[in-house]
Amino acid sequence: MPLSPKQMEEINVQREQTAITRRVVSEGMEERLYSAFKVLDHGFVRVIDYMGDDSAICQAARVSYGKGTKSVQNDAGLIRYLMRHWHSTPFEMCEIKLHVKLPVFVARQWIRHRTANVNEYSARYSILDREFYIPSPEHIAAQSVVNNQGRGESLSGEEAQSVLELLKADSARCYDNYEKMISQEDQQGLARELARMNLPANIYTQWYWKVDLHNLLHFLRLRADPHAQYEIRVYAEEICKLVREWVPHTYSAFEDYRLGGASLSQTSVNVLRRMIKGEDVDLQSSGMSKGEWGEFKSIFFD
Amino acid sequence: MPLSPKQMEEINVQREQTAITRRVVSEGMEERLYSAFKVLDHGFVRVIDYMGDDSAICQAARVSYGKGTKSVQNDAGLIRYLMRHWHSTPFEMCEIKLHVKLPVFVARQWIRHRTANVNEYSARYSILDREFYIPSPEHIAAQSVVNNQGRGESLSGEEAQSVLELLKADSARCYDNYEKMISQEDQQGLARELARMNLPANIYTQWYWKVDLHNLLHFLRLRADPHAQYEIRVYAEEICKLVREWVPHTYSAFEDYRLGGASLSQTSVNVLRRMIKGEDVDLQSSGMSKGEWGEFKSIFFD
Amino acid sequence: MPLSPKQMEEINVQREQTAITRRVVSEGMEERLYSAFKVLDHGFVRVIDYMGDDSAICQAARVSYGKGTKSVQNDAGLIRYLMRHWHSTPFEMCEIKLHVKLPVFVARQWIRHRTANVNEYSARYSILDREFYIPSPEHIAAQSVVNNQGRGESLSGEEAQSVLELLKADSARCYDNYEKMISQEDQQGLARELARMNLPANIYTQWYWKVDLHNLLHFLRLRADPHAQYEIRVYAEEICKLVREWVPHTYSAFEDYRLGGASLSQTSVNVLRRMIKGEDVDLQSSGMSKGEWGEFKSIFFD
Amino acid sequence: MPLSPKQMEEINVQREQTAITRRVVSEGMEERLYSAFKVLDHGFVRVIDYMGDDSAICQAARVSYGKGTKSVQNDAGLIRYLMRHWHSTPFEMCEIKLHVKLPVFVARQWIRHRTANVNEYSARYSILDREFYIPSPEHIAAQSVVNNQGRGESLSGEEAQSVLELLKADSARCYDNYEKMISQEDQQGLARELARMNLPANIYTQWYWKVDLHNLLHFLRLRADPHAQYEIRVYAEEICKLVREWVPHTYSAFEDYRLGGASLSQTSVNVLRRMIKGEDVDLQSSGMSKGEWGEFKSIFFD
Repeated sequence: MPLSPKQMEEINVQREQTAITRRVVSEGMEERLYSAFKVLDHGFVRVIDYMGDDSAICQAARVSYGKGTKSVQNDAGLIRYLMRHWHSTPFEMCEIKLHVKLPVFVARQWIRHRTANVNEYSARYSILDREFYIPSPEHIAAQSVVNNQGRGESLSGEEAQSVLELLKADSARCYDNYEKMISQEDQQGLARELARMNLPANIYTQWYWKVDLHNLLHFLRLRADPHAQYEIRVYAEEICKLVREWVPHTYSAFEDYRLGGASLSQTSVNVLRRMIKGEDVDLQSSGMSKGEWGEFKSIFFD
Repeated sequence: MPLSPKQMEEINVQREQTAITRRVVSEGMEERLYSAFKVLDHGFVRVIDYMGDDSAICQAARVSYGKGTKSVQNDAGLIRYLMRHWHSTPFEMCEIKLHVKLPVFVARQWIRHRTANVNEYSARYSILDREFYIPSPEHIAAQSVVNNQGRGESLSGEEAQSVLELLKADSARCYDNYEKMISQEDQQGLARELARMNLPANIYTQWYWKVDLHNLLHFLRLRADPHAQYEIRVYAEEICKLVREWVPHTYSAFEDYRLGGASLSQTSVNVLRRMIKGEDVDLQSSGMSKGEWGEFKSIFFD
Repeated sequence: MPLSPKQMEEINVQREQTAITRRVVSEGMEERLYSAFKVLDHGFVRVIDYMGDDSAICQAARVSYGKGTKSVQNDAGLIRYLMRHWHSTPFEMCEIKLHVKLPVFVARQWIRHRTANVNEYSARYSILDREFYIPSPEHIAAQSVVNNQGRGESLSGEEAQSVLELLKADSARCYDNYEKMISQEDQQGLARELARMNLPANIYTQWYWKVDLHNLLHFLRLRADPHAQYEIRVYAEEICKLVREWVPHTYSAFEDYRLGGASLSQTSVNVLRRMIKGEDVDLQSSGMSKGEWGEFKSIFFD
Repeated sequence: MPLSPKQMEEINVQREQTAITRRVVSEGMEERLYSAFKVLDHGFVRVIDYMGDDSAICQAARVSYGKGTKSVQNDAGLIRYLMRHWHSTPFEMCEIKLHVKLPVFVARQWIRHRTANVNEYSARYSILDREFYIPSPEHIAAQSVVNNQGRGESLSGEEAQSVLELLKADSARCYDNYEKMISQEDQQGLARELARMNLPANIYTQWYWKVDLHNLLHFLRLRADPHAQYEIRVYAEEICKLVREWVPHTYSAFEDYRLGGASLSQTSVNVLRRMIKGEDVDLQSSGMSKGEWGEFKSIFFD
């Protein structure tokens, strides 16, 4: 369970606070505000604040004086048009602020998305909690034999068991020694900024992360992708659910044009033209490399 | 008057809409939401949306589960501490979205602040209104004789009058010809994306501009400065008033540490140390150039 | 002719300077360095400096100690792989600095690409030259009847002639009055920061623009596109030629995957799957809107 | 020793490569190019490429056709002027690319500077080396009693010894188990993207990091500051030496205006004005908080 009773209490107090506002409100988001949605064994994602909704995207695209909405159908069509033609600036007019608890090795991938605002819990200033990500047995997988930077099938029961025991034992020992080094009982106590270096990358950290909708969708496109590492993908998938509630028309266009779509080369377009005319094209006559041909077939023939 | 009755009506409809929210609310901002605050002869600034308040800055700095506020006094102290030590990330956790109407030559300066989101009214797609900035006589000034990129004293009445007449006549003629070129009566009508090139830089444009509080304060520091061009400074000053209502503790720290403060060189610090000890320091013994010495004296001896 | 004899002289002096360097050198770029390539009637693009080449992209992708090149063929394959899978960071490891002279209305579109460094010629500090973009007759076109933000067919000879005369006359008159206002003969002379507001958007400005290769390719993808406004497209096309000389493998992958490729929705992918199987799909059975169907057909059936 | 003989060899091969270029060359930088400058026990910084020099800053500030240099003295003065008045864009016209090897906990601080390009060695794709940062005994310090996020005095010999032993033992054991988990002898072998989570934050990683001079100076100002954590400060100090060789006028202005300067509040300016007039000001009459007063005194009275 990722939250202490005191944390639950603080969250509940915030959920009970209400106020009147003149701002645009997303009912779907209000319902989920502040609640912690569990991810992995100790992690979570929760929405702290948001700005705008589907109508705010149309309002900005039209540089409107009023609400910007003409009709719901009209807005949905405009949003699809903007997404299809890569007009990204109107989507930048919505913003979301999340509180995320996540393992350090996931945080290190996540932070590579630079166009966002971040406040991370400081291990120079504070003492980290004894919380480590330990994968569930079905996610303990072998190095992939086809993809140098991915994982393949699950490890056998025995090997998985051995991995689990090593991870647990090393996490526990490193944390014990972290505590021992910073302890001020009968000794001076090592500075926290130094002691933290003994903690492995599966320890949990947390941060406030604020991002506009355009950059969030870019993040989700890459991290909700089947090729993304499982441990970051589950965060992306949880955020996808929140975005669907927040800006449903945008999310629907995003699913069609980005998540489910395909980016084709000129070579692929030419092959498709020939196939539509009934020609039989194979690897040799396609002009593609073996890798490209495999990717091409997986889109159109699976 | 910068707004048409229809625009006023649209704004009023939005001001009357209210909803319940669980989000943090800034009373000062709610009061001002959507209203157009007049700037220059036809321009305005109005707040379309905002995220966060003073407490949200502290909440992010503490990566809190709850509201983040310990006490109002505590928060004010933390905000001053963060500002003094250039901890900028907590201030990035607040966001504001403005609708601004402004002359094109002001927009060209403004857009140089890159860390913001912008949707500008498109003169490829739409026809611009016949609205031009014509300075009031007291702002028609001569080229500065001390600062190569500024203005000096006001022009004499007659010369100012002549400038006004030229500006008005050229604006009117250029707009007349813009309309004549795009007209589709008895002719095909020039494309709007071409016709716009005939419009001078004092025509008004408008945009939605969204920015986080840290980058907004940086913008205000440079553009509310007495050395900024008058025509952009009045926008910055109007926004300063809005920020004061939105995040009063932050604005107060900003005034003390940034707007009213000074950034000193090592050389200046050394001169001050000598002066405090009672030494008489002049240009020659200061080690500064004439320009630096003048700026130094204007801070401490005016 | 866009350059004065003095400017030509300065450029030639710089072209004659040579030095020994240990850095990676691109022969194609060295050949073109500093030369002004003409665009429109008075504009140009010239390369002031560059960093890296194709091998530098591979070197960064491999975080190499040495040159990073295994073999030319190997590098070309890696570059195609990186481009196909949207691994953008290695392309950010090359950088280019351009000096561009361009009409103000083009500069206003260009600057919307925020991830770049810019130093623009200051009309607060300096006096702009009397140089205006006047389209050649064949580029004077009517508003498009199918695309609200584009141009259609060329205007008839008479209407085009009338447009040309209006543009020329207004440019000349506005510039005459600009000079009259800033003149310090027998008067104080208006500040330059004010006088510039009388100049129309077809006046030329210039800037130094520095950008990494990934962001440059993104700019080129949008601005070398047939839907981009002609006046910015010609700059993009000139820069494309320079990039081809600078990083030939990257440019070739860019042409295949970006310029000539297509970005498809899930709906489009599904329609293609049915077509490949021999099914006859029309607008009605496609599940697309009329606009999407038209765009889809233009990719695969033109 | 941070480099293997093979790596030394690769570096030497690159150092021996020379070519003729028309680009601006910095002799100081050419001398240092590619060489690894040692930092901490296994880390280094080495310059892979650079663009521009002091003259390039002036050239961009003047939007020049030629070299931009009027005279060396002239350039130095212009650079001081630009630095003093926070004209940052000309400094963005120089760029540097570094290869850095550094402990993960240092990398996590470093990456928070977002305006830079990064390619990090991938632990999903590759196996990390057995190299851990182990502080030298004099840098093993206690938690500070005055600064919650810093370190105080060195630990006593015995306590320091105990810390060293814990760090070494945990690093060794975690790496042994990392190897055991990924081994493919007699087992499938855990995916590298999972196994890496067992490695503590003192393991070394490496990356290519490319940044413009303005953002680099901002990084150096914060990280070469005495309050920065020692382990990142030593990298910043090593880079400072490289910048001094690369752009000596800029570095000299940076030292005076940023590294050695002070940023004062309005309250501090007012107190200084009174002190210069001979008034005795103490904490109570200063209007400052205790913390601010302490910082103020440390600037002017130490």
